[in-house]
Amino acid sequence: MNSKIITLIHTSKVLRNNPLKDPYKREVVVYLPPSYLDTAKSYPVVYLIAGFTGYGKMNMNVSGYSENIKERLDRLIKTKKIKEMIVVMPDCFTKYGGSQYVNSAATGRYEDYMIKEIVPYIDNTYRTIPKPESRCIIGKSSGGYGAMWLAMRHPDIFKLMVTHSGDTAFEYCYSKDFPDFIVGIQKYGEGHQAVRNFIKTELNKNQPKPRSFHVILNTIGMASCYSPNPKRREYNFDLPFDIYTGEIIPAIWNKWLRFDPVRLVKKYKSNLKKLKMIFVDCGTKDEFNLHAGARIYCSKLKENGIKYIHQEFEDGHMNIQYRYDVSFKSISDYLSYK
Amino acid sequence: MNSKIITLIHTSKVLRNNPLKDPYKREVVVYLPPSYLDTAKSYPVVYLIAGFTGYGKMNMNVSGYSENIKERLDRLIKTKKIKEMIVVMPDCFTKYGGSQYVNSAATGRYEDYMIKEIVPYIDNTYRTIPKPESRCIIGKSSGGYGAMWLAMRHPDIFKLMVTHSGDTAFEYCYSKDFPDFIVGIQKYGEGHQAVRNFIKTELNKNQPKPRSFHVILNTIGMASCYSPNPKRREYNFDLPFDIYTGEIIPAIWNKWLRFDPVRLVKKYKSNLKKLKMIFVDCGTKDEFNLHAGARIYCSKLKENGIKYIHQEFEDGHMNIQYRYDVSFKSISDYLSYK
Amino acid sequence: MNSKIITLIHTSKVLRNNPLKDPYKREVVVYLPPSYLDTAKSYPVVYLIAGFTGYGKMNMNVSGYSENIKERLDRLIKTKKIKEMIVVMPDCFTKYGGSQYVNSAATGRYEDYMIKEIVPYIDNTYRTIPKPESRCIIGKSSGGYGAMWLAMRHPDIFKLMVTHSGDTAFEYCYSKDFPDFIVGIQKYGEGHQAVRNFIKTELNKNQPKPRSFHVILNTIGMASCYSPNPKRREYNFDLPFDIYTGEIIPAIWNKWLRFDPVRLVKKYKSNLKKLKMIFVDCGTKDEFNLHAGARIYCSKLKENGIKYIHQEFEDGHMNIQYRYDVSFKSISDYLSYK
Amino acid sequence: MNSKIITLIHTSKVLRNNPLKDPYKREVVVYLPPSYLDTAKSYPVVYLIAGFTGYGKMNMNVSGYSENIKERLDRLIKTKKIKEMIVVMPDCFTKYGGSQYVNSAATGRYEDYMIKEIVPYIDNTYRTIPKPESRCIIGKSSGGYGAMWLAMRHPDIFKLMVTHSGDTAFEYCYSKDFPDFIVGIQKYGEGHQAVRNFIKTELNKNQPKPRSFHVILNTIGMASCYSPNPKRREYNFDLPFDIYTGEIIPAIWNKWLRFDPVRLVKKYKSNLKKLKMIFVDCGTKDEFNLHAGARIYCSKLKENGIKYIHQEFEDGHMNIQYRYDVSFKSISDYLSYK
Repeated sequence: MNSKIITLIHTSKVLRNNPLKDPYKREVVVYLPPSYLDTAKSYPVVYLIAGFTGYGKMNMNVSGYSENIKERLDRLIKTKKIKEMIVVMPDCFTKYGGSQYVNSAATGRYEDYMIKEIVPYIDNTYRTIPKPESRCIIGKSSGGYGAMWLAMRHPDIFKLMVTHSGDTAFEYCYSKDFPDFIVGIQKYGEGHQAVRNFIKTELNKNQPKPRSFHVILNTIGMASCYSPNPKRREYNFDLPFDIYTGEIIPAIWNKWLRFDPVRLVKKYKSNLKKLKMIFVDCGTKDEFNLHAGARIYCSKLKENGIKYIHQEFEDGHMNIQYRYDVSFKSISDYLSYK
Repeated sequence: MNSKIITLIHTSKVLRNNPLKDPYKREVVVYLPPSYLDTAKSYPVVYLIAGFTGYGKMNMNVSGYSENIKERLDRLIKTKKIKEMIVVMPDCFTKYGGSQYVNSAATGRYEDYMIKEIVPYIDNTYRTIPKPESRCIIGKSSGGYGAMWLAMRHPDIFKLMVTHSGDTAFEYCYSKDFPDFIVGIQKYGEGHQAVRNFIKTELNKNQPKPRSFHVILNTIGMASCYSPNPKRREYNFDLPFDIYTGEIIPAIWNKWLRFDPVRLVKKYKSNLKKLKMIFVDCGTKDEFNLHAGARIYCSKLKENGIKYIHQEFEDGHMNIQYRYDVSFKSISDYLSYK
Repeated sequence: MNSKIITLIHTSKVLRNNPLKDPYKREVVVYLPPSYLDTAKSYPVVYLIAGFTGYGKMNMNVSGYSENIKERLDRLIKTKKIKEMIVVMPDCFTKYGGSQYVNSAATGRYEDYMIKEIVPYIDNTYRTIPKPESRCIIGKSSGGYGAMWLAMRHPDIFKLMVTHSGDTAFEYCYSKDFPDFIVGIQKYGEGHQAVRNFIKTELNKNQPKPRSFHVILNTIGMASCYSPNPKRREYNFDLPFDIYTGEIIPAIWNKWLRFDPVRLVKKYKSNLKKLKMIFVDCGTKDEFNLHAGARIYCSKLKENGIKYIHQEFEDGHMNIQYRYDVSFKSISDYLSYK
Repeated sequence: MNSKIITLIHTSKVLRNNPLKDPYKREVVVYLPPSYLDTAKSYPVVYLIAGFTGYGKMNMNVSGYSENIKERLDRLIKTKKIKEMIVVMPDCFTKYGGSQYVNSAATGRYEDYMIKEIVPYIDNTYRTIPKPESRCIIGKSSGGYGAMWLAMRHPDIFKLMVTHSGDTAFEYCYSKDFPDFIVGIQKYGEGHQAVRNFIKTELNKNQPKPRSFHVILNTIGMASCYSPNPKRREYNFDLPFDIYTGEIIPAIWNKWLRFDPVRLVKKYKSNLKKLKMIFVDCGTKDEFNLHAGARIYCSKLKENGIKYIHQEFEDGHMNIQYRYDVSFKSISDYLSYK
């Protein structure tokens, strides 16, 4: 197969001076389908966005018994399971693990980065079909969240959306971590200083991770996206619970809920109705309870008369890239090629 | 040691005609301390109430490397760690796993059973010191819940209370099971009929338990206590979530929350102030997140100017009977012996 | 049902002066079937022997959703699944967790205790049918081991045998613990002194169990049965591996293997041929790999022309008492009632 | 940092016509240290070999909170923790998961590939110091095994060796999988045909992995390396146990043991004495029991008067790349730079 992986370096204006001093020059990984270089055709574009702690380039990681994105797309195209398309994998990682693809005063304006910079940049760089009918946003986990978020707010950009095991129904997927957080954070010090210390000492790449690393990081990551607070002394977001007792703080928790897709369907009803394809799936053993989220989300779509495809499969949250075979097939069917 | 275990058979009026047709003649297991039979003294009474799926007699179960209640009390008394006391272990089990020691239209009036029948029955049967200062209510898990519930509502009966890893902060301890429930229940049939089928086929003692048995049973048990609904067609309670999607149904969930100790401290403030001892502990690895509940509960006590003892230990929810060594010591210190 | 549970206190000569100073007066729990007290009939006897860390009385432990032995037998008899029989549950527990029902210079002569004392004592005390065709030995886990061991050595006593998930194929069921043992024991001190310290400090009933408790106890228990060494300075058995590296010590390991049922079938072939029923089962998810042991054991029986019943079920090692429904049915079919 | 990653494509003669038809053109990933391109210096070479299911290129996989090999080496060099060196990461993967770096009639001659092709190829391609004192072989897990195997057989090639959690003490690290294998394989068919079917249907990159995938693959992989049998009908190796019962087949198992490092120290004593550095480490919670293997291996080295460095750390088998910080420091100290 003569498909190509191109790693562009894009210099962002939106991310310049982001609050975490994360890089504003970032790699954008692009899959150009086999015929791209041999023809003058234009192609639809699928934006594949990464889950928490991930970024686009990780889709190119190799392993012995699992395909990376190039191998998978090549096979699907070669075996005619899907038509040719451009797939773009941007980097919206932050120091705290991820941006959820929203604009946040704590991390940066990643929604703007995606909508105002990456999409136009791709349309300017490649022979794309620059229409919403010919664009899909797809992701897994926090990437699924990002897909739900961006598609419902920007149906003028994306008219196809896929959420694999996407974050939603926040009371099920996030709050279960808070009781572990309050215990795990204590070894880093007293009160809020402990969070500051965790951030200072654990967020690097070269040391063993403590047992509660993922629970703490995930909570910090979400708080930085959903309840930023640049004025706080120790760090620049608010936790939605008392750091010692774990008691929910409604004022902050409600800020989170304002980002919860199951709670936004009605508000964005008219936007969602514009979408040509909504694909939702989740494993019934999802460790983050996201199968409940997917069911609730779909029930809201249904209530509001919005069409969707909903699938379940018997698996957990991890190692489910094989689901791309199903979702890309659906994308291929619904993408407009003209 | 000449302590005695007596198994009384008590015939209840309160439980007669209970909705689940559970027995109304029940065993009450009583520990009489070593000197009881040799003296004419009167003794304080500790009511030790069981956790979910348990009942009093289970405290007498034996095993190779863990004491049962008689062995433990004998040792504590013999080594002068605690003073002599009567310990009463009633049976408030129901077909659905437990009563939470509340009055429920779905299971029966177990609060009344405890307060109006068991306590007077014991005072009539043995040489007790029939005063609230000389009575303690203690339990673990759902027994800890029952202790919190009964003590705050009946300080005229119990002036000492111990909750080991007691159910509270319901959003942390119960709702995490709902996403598993909606998947696990599906193999029993369609919609609400599935719950009815589960109840009909799984609630017996002689067959293997399916993987989701405890998650389903626990949810059914709590719903039967907190949101009874004798008018429902398939079964006699309401689930606080949509049975297919898991979406929280606020009207029902709020019924649950009206039973949540962390939410009741303010309401029962004056009662709680009457208590002579409140002992709260929980393991920091509690699988049901009850360490958060314990912390929140204590913070509410503190806010309301109520004294308490709060301890944490590094363990989970199961096999923590060794904590009785600490709580009974405290009980012994605070019980009035005159 | 008018069945009776009798708890006899038997004073053993065989166990007097046992090396661990374990009690020699022990409880023998006996189930007398419903008709026993109303008739003059004699009954076959089933000896139900306990697993590691267990003893007879534990079969009478109660719980909410699982039958104890009396409830189970009552139901099976009442519903005509099985005929009436006496069931005897002796106590062969030791300080180190269990005797494996063998004679050991480290723990005591438990094989003799069973054969020379308990069986005659029961025949003298109750109206039994005192013939091997009318006796069964049955157990689970280490109790299954004991059943295999005693039946093949004493077909003149027991002509029926049931092993549920019984210990065998020692290279699969025991040696996997040794690497955990060498790490877990280190916190108790240097070299062999650590084992002595573990024995001194952990083998009691009233304190939390460390994480490696069961792995260490199991290894100590088995070594005390299979490789006793009264002359060792620190304790009275030999470990079959180097205490620091875990390297197998063939001379000691071979002592263990001399007790492994899969390695003894040929030697005891003529005895095993005398048995009227051999029932072997195990769950295919057995955490101790005993399903492999069961398969190998049965293959050896087959090779030697010995009849057996072999069943598998999809479960692990724990909470499988429901299997008694199947095995007692088979016992009932094969026991001689005359 | 101006270090470079070069991906060479090497065409192997040794692997041409390998029995599994695995590729004989393979990528060799090479890290050239920062100063390489700016100077005429020659450098020592470290051969970093992959674990089971892995291959060289996977060291370049990126992730959010863990360094890949380039990032790690760059940091260690920049902070002067280690001196500059060339690091070579070959590909010895096979269809069955890995080659263990031995010559096998079932998979191919991977030992020869390493020794006769890769090392000379690197020495011909780069400015290396082509002396054994200036070469190190290092790996983790099966890569650690390969390091032990190659160094003891080729001290004329490698005089430094690092084994991180390397496979050894086969009775502890491999045989524990066999009972799971015999159950897991059954769903693929009858007897040995089941293995053939597994190989035919599961060894691809694009489908979900069944629960027993890793246990089965690992056993197949090791058998293909340690007990190849090109004459077998269904597949080209022998399993060291009966496929239905799991009973060890000594004749085959002994073939495995002839590859076990702890059993080879004495035989290769004079070779091992030539090594300038042997570094052995393992986590004390290693899920494959390799900490026991490491201890036994070191005890054998000690018995034979061979020097070594042995470290333990409190972690399991996975996600321990941070240990390279320690081992590369030691490599840097011992490598000869002239």
